[in-house]
Amino acid sequence: MTTVLTDLSYGKSRIRLTKVTRHADRHEIRELTIDIELEGDFASSYTSGDNRLVLPTDTMKNVAYAIAREHPLDSLESFGIDLAGHFLDQHAHISGAIVRLEEQPLERIAVAGMAHPHAFLGTRSERRKCTIRRSRTGQRVQSGLDGLFLLKTTESAFAGFLRDRYTILPETSDRILATVLDAHWHYAAAKVGMDWNGTHDLIRETLLAVFAGHKSLSAQHTLHDMGTAAIEACPQLEEITLAMPNKHRLLVALEPFGLDNPGAVFVATDEPHGMIRGTLRRA
Amino acid sequence: MTTVLTDLSYGKSRIRLTKVTRHADRHEIRELTIDIELEGDFASSYTSGDNRLVLPTDTMKNVAYAIAREHPLDSLESFGIDLAGHFLDQHAHISGAIVRLEEQPLERIAVAGMAHPHAFLGTRSERRKCTIRRSRTGQRVQSGLDGLFLLKTTESAFAGFLRDRYTILPETSDRILATVLDAHWHYAAAKVGMDWNGTHDLIRETLLAVFAGHKSLSAQHTLHDMGTAAIEACPQLEEITLAMPNKHRLLVALEPFGLDNPGAVFVATDEPHGMIRGTLRRA
Amino acid sequence: MTTVLTDLSYGKSRIRLTKVTRHADRHEIRELTIDIELEGDFASSYTSGDNRLVLPTDTMKNVAYAIAREHPLDSLESFGIDLAGHFLDQHAHISGAIVRLEEQPLERIAVAGMAHPHAFLGTRSERRKCTIRRSRTGQRVQSGLDGLFLLKTTESAFAGFLRDRYTILPETSDRILATVLDAHWHYAAAKVGMDWNGTHDLIRETLLAVFAGHKSLSAQHTLHDMGTAAIEACPQLEEITLAMPNKHRLLVALEPFGLDNPGAVFVATDEPHGMIRGTLRRA
Amino acid sequence: MTTVLTDLSYGKSRIRLTKVTRHADRHEIRELTIDIELEGDFASSYTSGDNRLVLPTDTMKNVAYAIAREHPLDSLESFGIDLAGHFLDQHAHISGAIVRLEEQPLERIAVAGMAHPHAFLGTRSERRKCTIRRSRTGQRVQSGLDGLFLLKTTESAFAGFLRDRYTILPETSDRILATVLDAHWHYAAAKVGMDWNGTHDLIRETLLAVFAGHKSLSAQHTLHDMGTAAIEACPQLEEITLAMPNKHRLLVALEPFGLDNPGAVFVATDEPHGMIRGTLRRA
Repeated sequence: MTTVLTDLSYGKSRIRLTKVTRHADRHEIRELTIDIELEGDFASSYTSGDNRLVLPTDTMKNVAYAIAREHPLDSLESFGIDLAGHFLDQHAHISGAIVRLEEQPLERIAVAGMAHPHAFLGTRSERRKCTIRRSRTGQRVQSGLDGLFLLKTTESAFAGFLRDRYTILPETSDRILATVLDAHWHYAAAKVGMDWNGTHDLIRETLLAVFAGHKSLSAQHTLHDMGTAAIEACPQLEEITLAMPNKHRLLVALEPFGLDNPGAVFVATDEPHGMIRGTLRRA
Repeated sequence: MTTVLTDLSYGKSRIRLTKVTRHADRHEIRELTIDIELEGDFASSYTSGDNRLVLPTDTMKNVAYAIAREHPLDSLESFGIDLAGHFLDQHAHISGAIVRLEEQPLERIAVAGMAHPHAFLGTRSERRKCTIRRSRTGQRVQSGLDGLFLLKTTESAFAGFLRDRYTILPETSDRILATVLDAHWHYAAAKVGMDWNGTHDLIRETLLAVFAGHKSLSAQHTLHDMGTAAIEACPQLEEITLAMPNKHRLLVALEPFGLDNPGAVFVATDEPHGMIRGTLRRA
Repeated sequence: MTTVLTDLSYGKSRIRLTKVTRHADRHEIRELTIDIELEGDFASSYTSGDNRLVLPTDTMKNVAYAIAREHPLDSLESFGIDLAGHFLDQHAHISGAIVRLEEQPLERIAVAGMAHPHAFLGTRSERRKCTIRRSRTGQRVQSGLDGLFLLKTTESAFAGFLRDRYTILPETSDRILATVLDAHWHYAAAKVGMDWNGTHDLIRETLLAVFAGHKSLSAQHTLHDMGTAAIEACPQLEEITLAMPNKHRLLVALEPFGLDNPGAVFVATDEPHGMIRGTLRRA
Repeated sequence: MTTVLTDLSYGKSRIRLTKVTRHADRHEIRELTIDIELEGDFASSYTSGDNRLVLPTDTMKNVAYAIAREHPLDSLESFGIDLAGHFLDQHAHISGAIVRLEEQPLERIAVAGMAHPHAFLGTRSERRKCTIRRSRTGQRVQSGLDGLFLLKTTESAFAGFLRDRYTILPETSDRILATVLDAHWHYAAAKVGMDWNGTHDLIRETLLAVFAGHKSLSAQHTLHDMGTAAIEACPQLEEITLAMPNKHRLLVALEPFGLDNPGAVFVATDEPHGMIRGTLRRA
């Protein structure tokens, strides 16, 4: 034996699931994309092609649809916990199940100011996500969102930074700050009866409010205060990780054309961009 | 001469422009992506590399930023008309200017229920667009939107269709209808003082309302009635073209697992998809 | 009647087809993505939901697979011609069929210098494409390629251009020229027995050779000479359209860091970019 | 203090760098995209907006260009090591530097069978990558590739697997196996004078040869034997991680149309897909 298999997992990715719940007066709908990954006693399928303990990834997909048939799908988290639990319950040789869920948000079409009972639109690029990791000894629920573009036109500075031979960036006391927020967090404990949706909304609103109101001395500074506020606002929140690319808006030089530019016209750039990350934990 | 140059144009694409208007009590912002294309007496630059009549594409970009400095940017259309007009006004050898504009929609962050004066979020994948084509003899304004995902869970049928040797599709009286709407239209005349934004919103709302309320016998049928309603609702609308991919939601077969599936669990697919197109003109 | 339906078509898009031909000593494979669009007497399906003449798009997909079963798939063009012809042959009320084909190129894995009989890799982002338009009176074959990134490090200039108030671009006698070529063309007549693959390769090689060897005075100039050479090299070629974005490579200013930069270090940018288009026809 | 900052980093992403080396008889070119991330004593910039120890991300970008000016860029790895080292050398409060490099491969255009001295094409979607992690106590070099589409038309089976209530997948002794390989690995020690490019090519060729020649009993089985062969072929290779999505090619049911389908016509699907991962270490 020249090699040892130190890590392995296998699963099914990009399972797309639409669930419609038909009430008398209105329909509910959720559209999810699901990844399932299993860990366990699968080494012999790798080393010798012995598949006797391999549950096909096609079966994982079938399970997702079957569980969804009877589950209320009231939240990503509650569905993911049940789906991950299924594999551990059914097969003793499976030691861990990881379920990643992402929701394409839909909202009701408004017709003459009234929410329509069965017609929806989906125009949001922001995604709500969660990852459930269940093992024989416990579970870990990570919730979050990504793709949330945020921009403020003032109350953002960047000055007093380190300068070396390669530093030519001017200081600024007033710039545009723009980012595409990726936030994910862990709850202290995943209790039965937890209000997953209400908690998600509270954290999201807190992050937005701090971003909007912050007197930012740097993207780092704003990230820190957003994360701290989320932990303070939500007692269940144990730890939050924020990634905030700094999507630069650069003032366009209009002097060559005889025009001033007092913070009016900018060019948006995607590359290169700054990338600021931080993890905050309840003290 | 073995070849003749029968068509040509050149221009600058993906000019990204952010315009901030700073009022005392609040800031306004628009983020656009602009393509500019010029037609005219440029053949010698192709045939012999004689650039004397070639306005550099870098200059086109500069013009976009300079015009934006002084323009209110109250609508895509009004800005595009002025921008296209600039090139015809300045250079006699330019016979046509095409300006394509696309807006990344931003909305104010709500903090404690109040719209924030200078903080914004942008989560919509739907895009408002317009194309301005100006020549020495006139102009044509095409407005529209794309990327608008629409779905209804009922009141959509597809039956009574042609069957041949290769047809195995079952008829259905009740299916999910899902699409990503691409709609663009021409106005009868682009008048000074036209309310471009209000007109856009009226057309969009009319399309949504018909999609929601329609007793659909096919995607074609719904497309037709959406377009007709838009023309009826908006007197300036002369012609509208709709493209509606049929993004299938397929009922999952759960019988093998001992479960029924009365319109509850579907798989969403992106490929293959139907593609339905139609153009309607005022009679 | 407030509206009239002036244009319509419907079809199936993104049909993904893999065809394996199993010879005794080796396997052949082609992977295609196909769009099919039909024109004809379909107005009543739009105006009144009468589907009696509507061949389902699901059937179009089935036809593509069934025709592929017995077709040698020796070229995109020969398959597309037969596929488009099927619909006209089978249904008198169909007036036109448009088939668009795109190939994901695969090549044999080389093992110890030998082409493997049944293992392939596909790493090319370039795509070969064709569009077949058949009607009751004739057919038109458009062939082409796109996604072909080309770059030359010298023998490209841009000088002597028009300067106005908004022009600040410096002239250059030696720059990098980079583009992502999109080329498509029409053949004078689609003859039985035409060598579609050999002709495609000849045109591609001619375009590449001219790009490489050209003393370019502008992207327009190079585009013109590439198209002319293709028409001169290939007697069947009637008309060719080239679109060449000018993907700028900008010299980085290293003086602030005490370094020179004699054409050595550049930043690549994707937006904004120039866009040069031209169509050449045999004189 | 209600929170503690447990993890942080910041940097510059998507720095696009083109380096041209101009020899008398030919030009060399490399096009890279670079991410730089720094770790160290930056907490006060997060907690209080004190930027005195913050090297701007704009400076990181400048350093990349300046270092590239004088570096031969003979390999991704040698450049990344020097670039990461720069930050540790220059600033005592920086504890770690992570540099990620990705190369857009270019090859010379062949004109009349001869490699052109200064014209290139880039059509490969496969990407060579590396990540350099340097700290005060050592460095770790991870090399790899991704985006390499592989497919074999036979010698792939999947049978004898676990069946439960949700398993309906039929067994198969002969299927198409298709994947998009993502492989990355660590070298035992990064020695001065190591042949980074030759080693990369050896590993890549070994992975391809095993994929092609393997009698596969499952994707897991093939993954294992590919990784083992790479470790056996390359003495410097300490550990390799492979991720292989199982991009299904499903046999099309042609019986309804009166046709057989003996492994000839397949539909390619991207979602859902299997995902097989494994890490192998030298025993």
